[in-house]
Amino acid sequence: MEDIVLGEFLGCIFLMLFGGGVVANCVLTKSKGLNAGWLAIAIGWGFAVMGAVFVAKSTGSAQADLNPAVTLAKYLLGGIYTLGQLTPIILAQFLGCFVGSVIVWLAYYSHWKETKDPSTILAVFSTGPAIRSSGANFINEVIGTCVLVFGIGAIFGKATNNGEISPAMGPYFVGLLVWAVILSLGGATGCAINPARDLAPRIAHSLLPISGKGNSDWSYAWIPVLGPIVGGIFGALLWRAFL
Amino acid sequence: MEDIVLGEFLGCIFLMLFGGGVVANCVLTKSKGLNAGWLAIAIGWGFAVMGAVFVAKSTGSAQADLNPAVTLAKYLLGGIYTLGQLTPIILAQFLGCFVGSVIVWLAYYSHWKETKDPSTILAVFSTGPAIRSSGANFINEVIGTCVLVFGIGAIFGKATNNGEISPAMGPYFVGLLVWAVILSLGGATGCAINPARDLAPRIAHSLLPISGKGNSDWSYAWIPVLGPIVGGIFGALLWRAFL
Amino acid sequence: MEDIVLGEFLGCIFLMLFGGGVVANCVLTKSKGLNAGWLAIAIGWGFAVMGAVFVAKSTGSAQADLNPAVTLAKYLLGGIYTLGQLTPIILAQFLGCFVGSVIVWLAYYSHWKETKDPSTILAVFSTGPAIRSSGANFINEVIGTCVLVFGIGAIFGKATNNGEISPAMGPYFVGLLVWAVILSLGGATGCAINPARDLAPRIAHSLLPISGKGNSDWSYAWIPVLGPIVGGIFGALLWRAFL
Amino acid sequence: MEDIVLGEFLGCIFLMLFGGGVVANCVLTKSKGLNAGWLAIAIGWGFAVMGAVFVAKSTGSAQADLNPAVTLAKYLLGGIYTLGQLTPIILAQFLGCFVGSVIVWLAYYSHWKETKDPSTILAVFSTGPAIRSSGANFINEVIGTCVLVFGIGAIFGKATNNGEISPAMGPYFVGLLVWAVILSLGGATGCAINPARDLAPRIAHSLLPISGKGNSDWSYAWIPVLGPIVGGIFGALLWRAFL
Repeated sequence: MEDIVLGEFLGCIFLMLFGGGVVANCVLTKSKGLNAGWLAIAIGWGFAVMGAVFVAKSTGSAQADLNPAVTLAKYLLGGIYTLGQLTPIILAQFLGCFVGSVIVWLAYYSHWKETKDPSTILAVFSTGPAIRSSGANFINEVIGTCVLVFGIGAIFGKATNNGEISPAMGPYFVGLLVWAVILSLGGATGCAINPARDLAPRIAHSLLPISGKGNSDWSYAWIPVLGPIVGGIFGALLWRAFL
Repeated sequence: MEDIVLGEFLGCIFLMLFGGGVVANCVLTKSKGLNAGWLAIAIGWGFAVMGAVFVAKSTGSAQADLNPAVTLAKYLLGGIYTLGQLTPIILAQFLGCFVGSVIVWLAYYSHWKETKDPSTILAVFSTGPAIRSSGANFINEVIGTCVLVFGIGAIFGKATNNGEISPAMGPYFVGLLVWAVILSLGGATGCAINPARDLAPRIAHSLLPISGKGNSDWSYAWIPVLGPIVGGIFGALLWRAFL
Repeated sequence: MEDIVLGEFLGCIFLMLFGGGVVANCVLTKSKGLNAGWLAIAIGWGFAVMGAVFVAKSTGSAQADLNPAVTLAKYLLGGIYTLGQLTPIILAQFLGCFVGSVIVWLAYYSHWKETKDPSTILAVFSTGPAIRSSGANFINEVIGTCVLVFGIGAIFGKATNNGEISPAMGPYFVGLLVWAVILSLGGATGCAINPARDLAPRIAHSLLPISGKGNSDWSYAWIPVLGPIVGGIFGALLWRAFL
Repeated sequence: MEDIVLGEFLGCIFLMLFGGGVVANCVLTKSKGLNAGWLAIAIGWGFAVMGAVFVAKSTGSAQADLNPAVTLAKYLLGGIYTLGQLTPIILAQFLGCFVGSVIVWLAYYSHWKETKDPSTILAVFSTGPAIRSSGANFINEVIGTCVLVFGIGAIFGKATNNGEISPAMGPYFVGLLVWAVILSLGGATGCAINPARDLAPRIAHSLLPISGKGNSDWSYAWIPVLGPIVGGIFGALLWRAFL
């Protein structure tokens, strides 16, 4: 259990450092990767998750959720976590994402004061909608997370057990899955698909003394928390029903 | 057989959700991935097929065609399907692609009414020609599907049997093959190379209450159906002759 | 030996169909991939070689050179080919590249007459220099092919024998190597790094009735033939000396 | 030990040839890859490291550091190198990076005199800051190298020992890690994260008769040397503490 908590903490630092970092590089004024575009962002997030899984696994942890929605889905499927284990694991995920986004702030320290649009600064920390509409934004997060959880189930399910997918390639395929989800379904909300990845950096955004930052858009904050939770549960139920 | 039908249905949902999704992200007004370009679209379709194969295999299905042209090619090569099995399998593929494109419509719900060009909206569902010319468009679909079927044969043929390609990497290489086909040969028609991927979403486009949609371009619809069927048969014959 | 000749022929069709195809998609007027850029072209060529190796291997061939410069380098290293085998193998490579570029012409049939710049049309078939300068262009082709042959030696050399690289991943890594060579060294000449890939399509360009084509730039043709031969020999000698 | 020195020398030639080459292709006037963008540069550097590891391993070397910061980190962790071995290894790394950047100069020989901005020419050899600020630039190099060393530790640590990562895929994952570091953290300084990769080409820049070159920005040179050394030590300490 200590391995799992440590793995989730370290993995989530890595996740948010690379995930927030790629957005920073693509949107902050004078950054070398400015305007590298959505493909770059999708690849960056894919590698962020891939690397985070490697880091989590390297602690000896048997799990690598890095996402409260995945942890909850696994709990509901049963046999992996007890109710009491959920709190430390999810806390470690939030703490890791918080620390990761603080490091992104340091890595791009000179670029914040050059960036004049506060919503661009917030985008490095948390997601926001392309078109603001609670219902549609919520549904997009539900769909994205449902597909993520179902896809992870497919990667580590019967096909792996039958030897059709090498377990050693699992983290790689999970990374590609995230790359694909962001690339295909990220256009409407950016696809947080992870409550810790969105809420913890939003708290960091509100606490850190970032030059030129605006508000942390708290009115939107519930969507990338509740949407992924609902989507994760839905994905787990579909996975149990079909796979 | 039930495993196969379920696998084709679930896999095709995944296929069209990611494949239609990446086009939506790249072309719909105000989408975050607007103008990410053809490389992004080719990658998105490559991952759509890769993921669809994983999902199909995870039902325990021994097949993962996800494409009536591939199913027909396998039937003609003999020993895999009986004639009676074709109907439920192909029906499942069409139904899956239909459902997948409905989910894309939901995922990008706010973006349809913002998108003023009806042909851009249709592009999220079905392919269309860069330059309209029945003969040339048909030939492009034949070439693309022939190469797809021949390439799949190469991936799972003698090289795999000799241990030169790991079977566990098969779905990965099929995804890269589709990425390559769309990237290299998709410039003229978009390369449907799959009757279900084109016709089922076209039906969805005509039935769904999409804001601002135009006609479903039915005069073109036969080309991405017949072209892939002819190309698939041709590819299977070449494969039998050479490999 | 018949397996090898068939493999080189089929593989080179695949090579030039995907390699010429990606350039066509990125440069021909009205193509859907117009201006997808050099990264797309580098990826397309990487997958062209990767797929060509799979196809060649699938005939049961023990080799997959797809390049007279590689075949010559292997001959000079000794123990693989006899002198008499070179002619049929290299002939098959040229014939395959010729056929592949004819299929590209068919696949993009409507786009030639729309493309007003004759040098753009030629670029789909054969390479040309960014800045014309025989000496510098020649040296670039020598460097590119030397690195290609040395890199292939590294992939299939001691590291593979020690089990540090899985042989089943060899074609994949060769594809990535070509992707890297085009991406890093292709800026000056486009990096033909393969006499058959450049000369056979140039002959096709001069023979085919392509709408709006200009001359086939024969004055440049010797550079992407001799440069790769010299570079291949140089790479083989370095490989023998060091690895 | 001779194997290691040879491997580091040859690998670093490969590293800088591909790494410098991709920047040359993306920034030099009239190059075919001009403006291919930061994603192309990140991919090019990822493949540069991947290929360099393959080349180094192919000499029979048991190591493939290609980076004095990695070599120092390994020395501090103990049991791999003796103090006396450090000098020849690091010298070989510097010499390889020097030779590699000379070959880049030759490969793009006609493009230097066409490129009017001296800082663009220098960028092909060595990194420079997006916003000049010693403190922030130093911290970015520390973070990038710390993550690199920690990530390499994760790839070759417990997860590999448990069979969760195939050792044969190690060089591939290290390449993806570098791709990710440059993509996510390279926006502020370009992420040298390697003293030899930055200082040796800077010396080459100052010595070579490059048309139109300006000064070699020696006032910045200490940052991509000291930053990576501090970051590498920090990463090694974190790795020992956690993994």
